[in-house]
Amino acid sequence: MNPRIYLDNAATTPLLPEVVDAMAEVLKNNYGNPSSIHSEGRKARTCIEDSRKKIALSLGVSIGEIFFTSCGTESNNMVLKNSVRDLGVKRIISSPAEHHCILHSLNRISAEHPEVQIKFLPIDSDGRPNIEVLDEWLKRDPTYTLVSLMHANNETGAMVDLPQIASICRANNALFHSDTVQTVGYFPIKAREWGLHFLSGSAHKFHGPKGIGFVYINSDNHLSPYIDGGAQERNMRAGTENIHGIVGMSKALEIAIQNMEKNQLHITKLKESLLQGLHRLQPDIKVVGNNQGPSHFKVLNVLFPPDKKTDLILMNLDIHGVSVSGGSACSSGADAGSHVMEAIGIEPGWNTIRFSFSKFNKMKDVERVLSEIKQIIQP
Amino acid sequence: MNPRIYLDNAATTPLLPEVVDAMAEVLKNNYGNPSSIHSEGRKARTCIEDSRKKIALSLGVSIGEIFFTSCGTESNNMVLKNSVRDLGVKRIISSPAEHHCILHSLNRISAEHPEVQIKFLPIDSDGRPNIEVLDEWLKRDPTYTLVSLMHANNETGAMVDLPQIASICRANNALFHSDTVQTVGYFPIKAREWGLHFLSGSAHKFHGPKGIGFVYINSDNHLSPYIDGGAQERNMRAGTENIHGIVGMSKALEIAIQNMEKNQLHITKLKESLLQGLHRLQPDIKVVGNNQGPSHFKVLNVLFPPDKKTDLILMNLDIHGVSVSGGSACSSGADAGSHVMEAIGIEPGWNTIRFSFSKFNKMKDVERVLSEIKQIIQP
Repeated sequence: MNPRIYLDNAATTPLLPEVVDAMAEVLKNNYGNPSSIHSEGRKARTCIEDSRKKIALSLGVSIGEIFFTSCGTESNNMVLKNSVRDLGVKRIISSPAEHHCILHSLNRISAEHPEVQIKFLPIDSDGRPNIEVLDEWLKRDPTYTLVSLMHANNETGAMVDLPQIASICRANNALFHSDTVQTVGYFPIKAREWGLHFLSGSAHKFHGPKGIGFVYINSDNHLSPYIDGGAQERNMRAGTENIHGIVGMSKALEIAIQNMEKNQLHITKLKESLLQGLHRLQPDIKVVGNNQGPSHFKVLNVLFPPDKKTDLILMNLDIHGVSVSGGSACSSGADAGSHVMEAIGIEPGWNTIRFSFSKFNKMKDVERVLSEIKQIIQP
Repeated sequence: MNPRIYLDNAATTPLLPEVVDAMAEVLKNNYGNPSSIHSEGRKARTCIEDSRKKIALSLGVSIGEIFFTSCGTESNNMVLKNSVRDLGVKRIISSPAEHHCILHSLNRISAEHPEVQIKFLPIDSDGRPNIEVLDEWLKRDPTYTLVSLMHANNETGAMVDLPQIASICRANNALFHSDTVQTVGYFPIKAREWGLHFLSGSAHKFHGPKGIGFVYINSDNHLSPYIDGGAQERNMRAGTENIHGIVGMSKALEIAIQNMEKNQLHITKLKESLLQGLHRLQPDIKVVGNNQGPSHFKVLNVLFPPDKKTDLILMNLDIHGVSVSGGSACSSGADAGSHVMEAIGIEPGWNTIRFSFSKFNKMKDVERVLSEIKQIIQP
């Protein structure tokens, strides 16, 4: 039997063996509570602070600006909700193509703080927010604003220019948060140099473990904790630290950054080959994500024209050993259509397939996927 | 060199080898996103639901009443804050000896919802809340109330009678939440039979991993998520699930429950021997926790009378290879005195040592600890 081919790396990624080993070492031999002052506690604390340093260095920020959370979703909840509560933000500008953890946090803010304006930028056919409109809105109305825009869209891969947006925000005295969950470890990110105020990351998107994330909070903007309790994370996030998760995350990020260019070249070739092959198989497919700007090299979002054979393509690929996705995993459990595709205005009946690659994929995987798709759509 | 002796198991516990193995297996071979509908996703989902079933069974509750969180602290934040937001709770009755994650959540609620009354029960000399007063307060004032009282105090071990409190709460139409972080896996807990509405647990207190906890939410009381986003945990807790953590937690709980009586007998003997030995060494010590009611068999909180030699006893024990604690680990980083000891009203100058045991401790550990303490206080 052929081995399975996993092309859903925007949903989550397999862990690196080195990451599993580093985590197992902590689980076995470093169980102290980092808040304890005895030997076991200090050993655990050292581990965490070494990890924090690595992550801070990789983003070009201070060690004291990185806080560990349980996931990217928690990081995003914290920044949005606490900016309103702690910093007096009175308007949030975002996009309808953001992840549900942004959109549902905004719903919550609306319900609890009806005085806060929530505005959504128009998006282009890739799901990319219109930055000229952002500039215009910020210039027109000086209400204290948080702008929250993701670096790369998780469904289409469409990317925005973070330094440009940060510069517009700074020029207009607005705060800028970016959900960089899909790009940390894949693109160089210089949070401080670019002028971001907040940034969220999640380990399991770059071959690290699930259950651990981080948030960068620029030292000029002090938030209070979202999860209250003990003095962990310098009073910013209570709860005994997930040491093995933190160590796994920093190890995964370190390896991702060391191999960034190599991975980008390799994955870009896979994406291009798959796209060319799909075009040969079915010339009338459409690509969403890079029509009006750059897209993430790991994501290829393809629309197949309405056809009975492609209606079941996801399920048939799964049966043939290929895992791809119809959109974001986080909402697929709900069995609802993609809010991103709806916001873009995709014509009804077209079937979306999101192929998303990792460094573990090979060119022969692309060839097999093409052959499986050929069997499904040209039986 | 002698191996170190770890007697700080109320702060955190070493992981069971079986738990580490179960987690490593997931980390290596079960990386799918549980929300994905393809094979890898379904495999991950199955793993999580099996774990949920084990935990629900062990507490005598429905599978749909257990939700995974990142830690006991998050569970406690969620229950307290969302009871106010979602259930219309207008009064919270708690105790000044609760964990900081309860007390600081109450501070947050006070700041955001000044209309909510926060009341603290008087406590006895063990740190145990007065349940007669609770009954009186509930009878006197029918304001819709959440009662939040921990099962066993993490610093003194003082325990309350959960079925009794639940019954008083139900008789007075009040909700009852218990922070059972120190007792899950150590005592039989029948959440539904006893009539609790909410209960919080944390894996790393029963030889499971850090970074994972759960909350029991009785199906009669629907809370909305505390962390908003994807549809995970049946729309109750967003964020990609920490599969290896969940599997590690359920494995640890399963083993804890299988060995509950055996562990209790073993640890009780260690605690009694240490206490007898300490009394022989220094007859004027005081014990806090079991003077006016039962205490957790794993916790022995001892007060040493004011003396220069005992001032540095924690540090000296650490140097001699014995890890104990002066109170809760979660606040020791802050280097402040214990709020629990302060609430109890311990005379100034007395030095607290919390010894807390696990099944990994042996009688010879107790003997060595006594010999080390003898050297420190009777040099």
